[in-house]
Order: sequence, then structure tokens, then C-alpha cells
Amino acid sequence: MIKVKIEGVVLDLKSNLPIIVLRDDKQRVLPISVGLFEAQAIAFAMEGIKIPRPLTHDLAKSIIEKLGAKVMRVELTELKGNTYFAYIIMKPKDGEEIRIDSRPSDAIAIALRFQAQIFASEELLLLRETYKPIDESEVKSFREIIDKLPPDEFWKKLRDKK
Amino acid sequence: MIKVKIEGVVLDLKSNLPIIVLRDDKQRVLPISVGLFEAQAIAFAMEGIKIPRPLTHDLAKSIIEKLGAKVMRVELTELKGNTYFAYIIMKPKDGEEIRIDSRPSDAIAIALRFQAQIFASEELLLLRETYKPIDESEVKSFREIIDKLPPDEFWKKLRDKK
Repeated sequence: MIKVKIEGVVLDLKSNLPIIVLRDDKQRVLPISVGLFEAQAIAFAMEGIKIPRPLTHDLAKSIIEKLGAKVMRVELTELKGNTYFAYIIMKPKDGEEIRIDSRPSDAIAIALRFQAQIFASEELLLLRETYKPIDESEVKSFREIIDKLPPDEFWKKLRDKK
Repeated sequence: MIKVKIEGVVLDLKSNLPIIVLRDDKQRVLPISVGLFEAQAIAFAMEGIKIPRPLTHDLAKSIIEKLGAKVMRVELTELKGNTYFAYIIMKPKDGEEIRIDSRPSDAIAIALRFQAQIFASEELLLLRETYKPIDESEVKSFREIIDKLPPDEFWKKLRDKK
């Protein structure tokens, strides 16, 4: 398992769906297409945007904490067909680590809320070695959008782009 | 706290946002406007639609179960401004009940996954006694949409209605 960092969240102009771009120390990238809601949950956590009521991933964080557990790390393990698989690794108060099957987007959104590390399998990082690096200006423009918009407006903006 | 049931999920034609309609034994209704994602999470659970990968609320269910806890009930407690407040009441393996602050939509989506009962405060049910009953045909048409569509298509459909 290789440690990866989130390079950015960009909008794929063809599908109009957000893509989370992960990158390892060797500059290999792993782009994962996610839903709008999940992208919002990830982008808000990355940008430290506070919203008045807990989003679903904030709720998941409360649940984990109130039950006395911690998120240790998340792992993106494999690709089957067009679907990426991931696990959230948690540690209960007294007990062994638990692995929970998750979509990568949920795993990343939760990792960010616990400042937990994200890992990807060598297999996944090899898949996309030739993927072109993302354009910094795309990342910047996406950040500008989410910085300014409350959640409802963010939705509308994405819907209106269609 | 009064026991309520989910009457249906309808699309508000003005705002183009989904509304979850709750009803108590006295036929009082409580309509709660929710996001598209949350409506999808609720509608899928109501209709028993199985999807290949866990949605965020399915993940929350896994987390609660793997940490040895149960959802006892959810409570919709109050309205401040335009915001409804709710709590998810869980019971850890060995321990007292825990109350977790939640948006009503998340609370309902999780209650459905645990077949837990939904309660609303008398205060909330009194608020909207005059709200007109929903039209059965609206519920039916919404169900027909979600029955046929995979999650991605469901999104597109709702976006295209705009």
C-alpha cells in the first residue's frame, strides 16, 4: 500500500462529474470519478469550510467518535470493471482493527475528517501512470467556486453547468 | 414524542427539491424539504432498491453495526428558522443510549436502514396541521422514476427537470 495525497478536485468537462485526483510520492496519479455530493463532502473538508449543520460524513464522524472508535487509515484497493473498491480501517476503544467496505469517495471524505492517511494499492497506481497531470487552473477555479458558495448554491451551480 | 411514518417522498414543483412527508396516527403531516442526495438515500431504502456498492448511509449502517451498536429510534425535535433538528439514538454493546445530532434527512435515511421508529415532537406536528395532504399521484410518479433508474440516472433526471 502506497501513501497518496489529494491533489485536487476537478470537474470532468465531458461527463460534468467531479474527479478526485490522488498522487503518490513518485508523482503517479490516480483519478477517481465521484458523485457531486461526495465531491462536495470532500471539497468542504479540504477547504475547511464550516457549515451550520452536519453533512452525512460529519454525522459518520460523530457516530465513530461517540462509539469510542478512531479511523486509522483508508485504503483504495482495487478496480473491478469501472468500480473502485476501498476500505475504512477503524480501531474500537478496546479491540482489534476493523475493515469496513466503502466507496473510495466516502472513504476519502471520512479520512479527511479524521486527518487519517489515504493509501492506494500499487496495482491502482500502475493503472494510470500515463494519465495526464491535471491543470492547476482547473483546480484553482473549482476552489474559487466552492469557497464562495454555500452548499445549496454549490449544487445549483453544478446543475446549471449542464 | 409522537410516532410518525413516512407517507412519501415527493418533488416540490416550485423549488424542484424533494420533500419527505411524515404523518402521525392523527393524520397530522410534517413535510421536510431535503437535498436530492438525501431523498435518494431515503427513497432507495423505502423501495428496497439494492445497489451494488454501499451509499453513504449504508456505510454509516456498517460502521454502527461493526462497532457493535444499534439504532434504537430517531427523533425530530425542533425547528429553528428554516432548519429542522433531529437526533439519532443509538445503544452501544455495553453502555447507555447515545444521542447524536443529525439533520432529519440523515436520521430518517438511517432509521429506515435499521427499521427503527421515527418520532416527531408534538411542537413540530402542530406547526403544519393545515398543510394540504399530498397528492397520491405525485408519490406514484416519483416511485415510478426511482424504480426504473440506477442512481446515476436518477441524478440526471432530477437535474434535467430544472
